[in-house]
Amino acid sequence: MALSTQPYKGARDFYPEEKRVQNYIFKKIDQTCERFGYEEYNAPILEPTELYLSKGNQEIIDEQTYTFFDRGGRSVTIRTEMTPTVSRLVAGKRQELPYPIRWYSIANFWRYERAQKGRLREFWQLNADLFGIEGTQADQEIIELAAAIMKNFGAKPSMFTIRVSNRQFINYLMRVYLGLDEVQATSMIRLVDRIRKMDRADFIVQADAICQPSQREAGLVEKMLTVLDTKRVADLPEDLRQQPDVAEIQSLMDRLRAGGMENAEFDITLMRGFDYYTGMIFEGFDTDPENSRSLFGGGRYNGLVGNFGVEPVPTVGYAMGDVVLENFLRTHNLLPPLPTETDVYIVLAGDILSQTQAAISELRENGVNVAVDFSGRKLDKQLATAAKKGIRYALIIGEQELADKQFTLRDLGKGTEEKHSLARIASILADYRRPGKLLEDEQ
Amino acid sequence: MALSTQPYKGARDFYPEEKRVQNYIFKKIDQTCERFGYEEYNAPILEPTELYLSKGNQEIIDEQTYTFFDRGGRSVTIRTEMTPTVSRLVAGKRQELPYPIRWYSIANFWRYERAQKGRLREFWQLNADLFGIEGTQADQEIIELAAAIMKNFGAKPSMFTIRVSNRQFINYLMRVYLGLDEVQATSMIRLVDRIRKMDRADFIVQADAICQPSQREAGLVEKMLTVLDTKRVADLPEDLRQQPDVAEIQSLMDRLRAGGMENAEFDITLMRGFDYYTGMIFEGFDTDPENSRSLFGGGRYNGLVGNFGVEPVPTVGYAMGDVVLENFLRTHNLLPPLPTETDVYIVLAGDILSQTQAAISELRENGVNVAVDFSGRKLDKQLATAAKKGIRYALIIGEQELADKQFTLRDLGKGTEEKHSLARIASILADYRRPGKLLEDEQ
Repeated sequence: MALSTQPYKGARDFYPEEKRVQNYIFKKIDQTCERFGYEEYNAPILEPTELYLSKGNQEIIDEQTYTFFDRGGRSVTIRTEMTPTVSRLVAGKRQELPYPIRWYSIANFWRYERAQKGRLREFWQLNADLFGIEGTQADQEIIELAAAIMKNFGAKPSMFTIRVSNRQFINYLMRVYLGLDEVQATSMIRLVDRIRKMDRADFIVQADAICQPSQREAGLVEKMLTVLDTKRVADLPEDLRQQPDVAEIQSLMDRLRAGGMENAEFDITLMRGFDYYTGMIFEGFDTDPENSRSLFGGGRYNGLVGNFGVEPVPTVGYAMGDVVLENFLRTHNLLPPLPTETDVYIVLAGDILSQTQAAISELRENGVNVAVDFSGRKLDKQLATAAKKGIRYALIIGEQELADKQFTLRDLGKGTEEKHSLARIASILADYRRPGKLLEDEQ
Repeated sequence: MALSTQPYKGARDFYPEEKRVQNYIFKKIDQTCERFGYEEYNAPILEPTELYLSKGNQEIIDEQTYTFFDRGGRSVTIRTEMTPTVSRLVAGKRQELPYPIRWYSIANFWRYERAQKGRLREFWQLNADLFGIEGTQADQEIIELAAAIMKNFGAKPSMFTIRVSNRQFINYLMRVYLGLDEVQATSMIRLVDRIRKMDRADFIVQADAICQPSQREAGLVEKMLTVLDTKRVADLPEDLRQQPDVAEIQSLMDRLRAGGMENAEFDITLMRGFDYYTGMIFEGFDTDPENSRSLFGGGRYNGLVGNFGVEPVPTVGYAMGDVVLENFLRTHNLLPPLPTETDVYIVLAGDILSQTQAAISELRENGVNVAVDFSGRKLDKQLATAAKKGIRYALIIGEQELADKQFTLRDLGKGTEEKHSLARIASILADYRRPGKLLEDEQ
């Protein structure tokens, strides 16, 4: 029986056309991360399963990971996120690293999920983290980095919003202000996390179910809703506004505004999925309702490095996945044309490859990307192949051209032809700027 | 109990210092592949296990792969090589691709092996393949691409040799010329594959053991050794030289020589591990005896695309792993210094980040990679951090500098200082060429 040509379910093949899109996305991200002084790292895609267990996300391990025993009986997991790994790397060189350190990676991850729009089993993700600085200046930088990356793709502030909150403030709100116990608070946080996707009546029913009868009677849910409806820090109830975390949120919002950011807003309903956040949290959303998933998100997690038996390091970081980002870029028409990297297609009239090799090498040494057709087919077939590949120029070489040292360069875009010496052709082709090449130079 | 900071056994963490080496290696490879008109592709790291089973390498599946059942009960394997995957991709678009197609990928692979020098469980590998052309011109190109990549790293022809042979010729030699049956031929090919690592007497004992008594008596092993001792095609016994595959080898060697390649040689003892080769095979070796492993290898495999129920496509390709390549580059001192991508470290005198942001943005918009120290530490501490990070320049900013609009730029390499306007500083820094930056521009 013939083998299937399909990739494993929920994962993507990247044919050259799709790989060019991915490369464009990765290069733009690289460029901005480097502008902000972030250095790239990477780590193995397999991690010991313990790395993920420690965070108490047993549910994810049980249901959403690719976890198995290796041939030596060790339980291993294909990484599902980078945060535990990058914390491991920092802990491994805790004493010697020159803080503050700024690191980023673009890596692939796997989650066992039902594939749907914006969510696949294999995805690629940027992670950027700043280690060693406590305080809102670091929080501000990571949000500004996220916005700068979007800007580098040509995104305007009107195309996305960044919602900001603070996990410590949420904990205060749930535990102290509303008086929920730990289990109730956890359930309530998960419920509020879905508030924008729910009907208000449904939300109230479910929130009521989390409360004790006495809490319900005391109007806890109404009290919470009043707070959750708040749009600005200044509109929070007086007794909450006195809370130090609220001052921190306000200070961060002020800094972001002073830095010129127009599309960041305080969002008290923002919760973020992971349990490890200890302070500021944020998430980016497409303003186009077509793309409802979060574009990127992150926050402060000061505790993770300490899990490795070393002194903790204050950390703030964020992640952005490629699937949702690509949807965003397509929705807003922000992907430029990305033709092949090949500049010229050599069309050979006859079996003259050996005689032509010096010319081909000369072009390559001049920085020109050259593909050669030595299929022996007729010229029109070879030219049709060049056009189908989307290569801009074809260079036609036969016995006559080699004798005259004059070669025909056909511009397949314009349909024009010129005869030149090889040196002139090398110079025309080296000067020709593919859109992709522009980006390479720009870096 | 604290978590371990070690990566999974046999796999590597890439801290920024190591990641820069990897990025350098990948960029050089990208560059040469693109010069030759190869286009990048990629595919999921998990493949259905059937993809590997079809090739009859049950031994590898059983012993050397990471194979497990997913939560839906499907057997999946972390890819161990790219050839089956790239064949799958070509088969998936068999009719629509514009042949000849040239594709490459740089991807990671896993094999469950005992880690040792030059061999790890996770490794990265270049795969480059040319689909759609039968014949020695395509064989020649793939070998020349392999050599050009080495040259782009600064390797001289004296640093490595490329051994060339032909699997069809080997089959003829074993089956017809020596008269071995299929099982014997397979064993003998595996034995000859190790001939350079064995003592001659040992080799003879093991070769004898593969033979029937009558074959031993007829002097089969001596006959084989006479052939295996041949260094040049022209020195082969007359009745072998008449074989069409030998003419093909000779034609390829002539083409390579005519193309200026000095370090390719016919090696009749070269066998290559995989069963799927159908014609030319080659392997590159470091001439330094420190590095005994093969540097790269490949050959023609015309049958694999056909396994997917479509018409087969003539294919020639090769692969090169990062571990052995990096050993080669280090042995021959071919790795340049690779400092951080960060051009300048902003040292802040006091809590003046907000006032400095416009200046920082201006530098970044001019293409300068800027890291900012807002740790609030003393200037000398901040400068020491910049030096430890290996950043070339530090820009010192305080209230006075902001008022005067004159900033101190310290060259941490030379230990000199200059005062300039921001525009002048932006221009100095934008002109400063890190070694890594040179490579980016060169592309």
